[in-house]
Amino acid sequence: MSMLQENDPYMKDMKQVETAALFRQIIRIMEELRQGVKKPYKEVIDVASGDPQKTGMKPLSFVRQILAACLYPQLINDNKLPVDVRQRAQRLLGECPGGSVGSYSATRGMPDIVHRVSEYISRRDGGAWSNPENIYISPGSQWSLAELGAVPVPYYLDEEQGWELHMEELHRALASAKGVCNPVALYIINPGNPSGQVQSRQSIQEVIQFASEKRLFILADEVYQDTVYGEKSEFVSYKRVLAEMGPPFSDTVELASFHSASKGMLGECGLRCGYVELVNLDPAVMKYIYTQFSKDSCAPVLGQIALDVMANPPQPGDPSYPFYIEETQHIRTTLVHNVNRALTAFNSLPGLTCQPGEGGVFVFPRLDLPPRAIQKAKEAGLGPDTFYCVNLLEDAGVFARPGAEYGQKEGTHHIRICIMTPPDIMEELLRRVTSFHTQLMKDFS
Amino acid sequence: MSMLQENDPYMKDMKQVETAALFRQIIRIMEELRQGVKKPYKEVIDVASGDPQKTGMKPLSFVRQILAACLYPQLINDNKLPVDVRQRAQRLLGECPGGSVGSYSATRGMPDIVHRVSEYISRRDGGAWSNPENIYISPGSQWSLAELGAVPVPYYLDEEQGWELHMEELHRALASAKGVCNPVALYIINPGNPSGQVQSRQSIQEVIQFASEKRLFILADEVYQDTVYGEKSEFVSYKRVLAEMGPPFSDTVELASFHSASKGMLGECGLRCGYVELVNLDPAVMKYIYTQFSKDSCAPVLGQIALDVMANPPQPGDPSYPFYIEETQHIRTTLVHNVNRALTAFNSLPGLTCQPGEGGVFVFPRLDLPPRAIQKAKEAGLGPDTFYCVNLLEDAGVFARPGAEYGQKEGTHHIRICIMTPPDIMEELLRRVTSFHTQLMKDFS
Repeated sequence: MSMLQENDPYMKDMKQVETAALFRQIIRIMEELRQGVKKPYKEVIDVASGDPQKTGMKPLSFVRQILAACLYPQLINDNKLPVDVRQRAQRLLGECPGGSVGSYSATRGMPDIVHRVSEYISRRDGGAWSNPENIYISPGSQWSLAELGAVPVPYYLDEEQGWELHMEELHRALASAKGVCNPVALYIINPGNPSGQVQSRQSIQEVIQFASEKRLFILADEVYQDTVYGEKSEFVSYKRVLAEMGPPFSDTVELASFHSASKGMLGECGLRCGYVELVNLDPAVMKYIYTQFSKDSCAPVLGQIALDVMANPPQPGDPSYPFYIEETQHIRTTLVHNVNRALTAFNSLPGLTCQPGEGGVFVFPRLDLPPRAIQKAKEAGLGPDTFYCVNLLEDAGVFARPGAEYGQKEGTHHIRICIMTPPDIMEELLRRVTSFHTQLMKDFS
Repeated sequence: MSMLQENDPYMKDMKQVETAALFRQIIRIMEELRQGVKKPYKEVIDVASGDPQKTGMKPLSFVRQILAACLYPQLINDNKLPVDVRQRAQRLLGECPGGSVGSYSATRGMPDIVHRVSEYISRRDGGAWSNPENIYISPGSQWSLAELGAVPVPYYLDEEQGWELHMEELHRALASAKGVCNPVALYIINPGNPSGQVQSRQSIQEVIQFASEKRLFILADEVYQDTVYGEKSEFVSYKRVLAEMGPPFSDTVELASFHSASKGMLGECGLRCGYVELVNLDPAVMKYIYTQFSKDSCAPVLGQIALDVMANPPQPGDPSYPFYIEETQHIRTTLVHNVNRALTAFNSLPGLTCQPGEGGVFVFPRLDLPPRAIQKAKEAGLGPDTFYCVNLLEDAGVFARPGAEYGQKEGTHHIRICIMTPPDIMEELLRRVTSFHTQLMKDFS
């Protein structure tokens, strides 16, 4: 958790500098493999992004069936698809302009879907009020601060304490900005990416109090809310805690909460759709945002429909319910299995330590490399973690990302690995990392 | 044709001022109709955008079948879909990372699709060379100049001469910019939106010579290239003419050519996907564009697949070929039928004249309103054409757009109507416009 995160434009710029080599390398290797160049591996295991389907996780059938039926309405009359799928597709098409997913929708999302997303938020948050007018559906992160000329001020989580957020650290970060800039927003990712921590209700309350006191706009990236696996952890939204805190917080603290069809159980990255709920924003700002959105085109309609399904999964009694539960349960089991396997494997290797996470789809093991390896990285003009990732990709065909991209504490080095993969892929990945790491430690000891 | 066009950010800003009333009105009316408020019409005919499916035009089956099979691969094993559809879907899935349309693709488009789009361009342009490295697939118009602080300098087409482009007018426009700004790019839409003209090879040559002489970057919006219906008209791309002109033009004149799955025969606006081919750009600029693209997310994968089908329709001998030809032929026939019906109807009304077009999906009839109507518009704080559109929508339930949005010549007034609609909708539209217009002329005579 930091001001910096994966989709942050600053982060992207840092990446450009820090890991341009890595990106050129993956393109080259993929091309070489396509051309049949011999390597110690036949395929790259790409765990560089939070993209579960890239490594072979299966999409949810209910989502895909509805989308297919909306695209090709002949399927609605075909009894091969469950009846609730066909009914749902029929209703959704009725809500599309011209009865087709091929038409433009309203620029901030199909009104019926926006309404249902709002109802979903309310249900999720124990009945807390949600206004459809505050919800904007978009194809991706439209919320980059870069164009406003913003400067990120990093704060750090306590790795040894399971990546906990300490309020003193937020105070320190804010104080560090004095004379440099005037922070206006606090960016937070819960559940954490890459660190996998899940904030408690109490921790969220403290952050809200802090934001209230310092007049900071909270940008809450909550896209991993459906993938909490820690036994004692529970996702609680910023919106819910804010509502429960009551006035003056609930009607003054400005909040943007993000969610996406790309993450969580759906993992439909290729469909490009998410939403943001805006709370307590100045009406003038809301009007500005409305105008900005009106100028743009709508999010892909099929992505909007996926979002609708995410907000309204099958219910007990629906024909699709049992299989939907089976599939989501399988994803959850896989996630728990993989994180445990990864923890065991990484923590058994010298020079690697990995904190147990509670949610999200990543592990973020820490590297303690021998001085000679660090020296070698320096000679190559790379940070130690980027050096590690470059060699891991070249020698072992595992595409992971260096911690440098995620604002890690000065002097620490990590790699980020997506763990939402089929278990056999995870085993192969762990075999490759173990073998690579063992050799590296030997070579540079 | 003008520096201003539908997706131009400036245009959007002008719209905001000129037609904010119209957009608020359509939202209100749709809501009132949903609530059962009684009006002289049960449904609005929305011909405000180039969105054929919104008024009930059917999508191409081949496109939809492939997309449905890619989304729900069980359909690949189902013999209900034509075998070429199933094979194509299978191959496309093999090209998707992780074999799924749910994964992120490369940010500038799936490499195999980019290659095939490049081959398609080459075929279209009589074998002219096309480099896949110059092709960028994106979810929409990423090419707004607004952020660069650009100023549009309008030029006008000769309405009386079928919206022909005269070179003197380009010279005049460029001269008019002296002391105001230093024009760097020439924006052109061919086939025209809203004017429907199709440029001849000779006219394109002249524009390229002009751009070469004045060192202007040509931005050629060619999204209506598949909908040319004029008997003597033919679409010729800027890229092709440039290549045929040979050096020094072919290796110096900078060109961006745009195409989209939203327009033409596909009309898949809701999928959000298009491409641009960049020619003769400075390598430093290309590197900058590459970097900008790398920072963003990919276009929706299903949109990319639609683009691939657009570039590679079924061929003679393919099982899907006969029905594909039947469907595209039907669209063409409908377009010709509708444009003729619209011309006859509009030109038979006093105060309305409509130039025959040769391509695109719009007609752009000119209004000559009685002075009392113009006075009334002025009192309402609206331009005459916006006043006309506001009343046409309110009284007759036809949503058209005022010419003010498209940079019409000072003192002239037009309305833009999309004519890619089912013929019965076109008839109902013409009935409504005729009745409304006749009443308006009577009221204000």
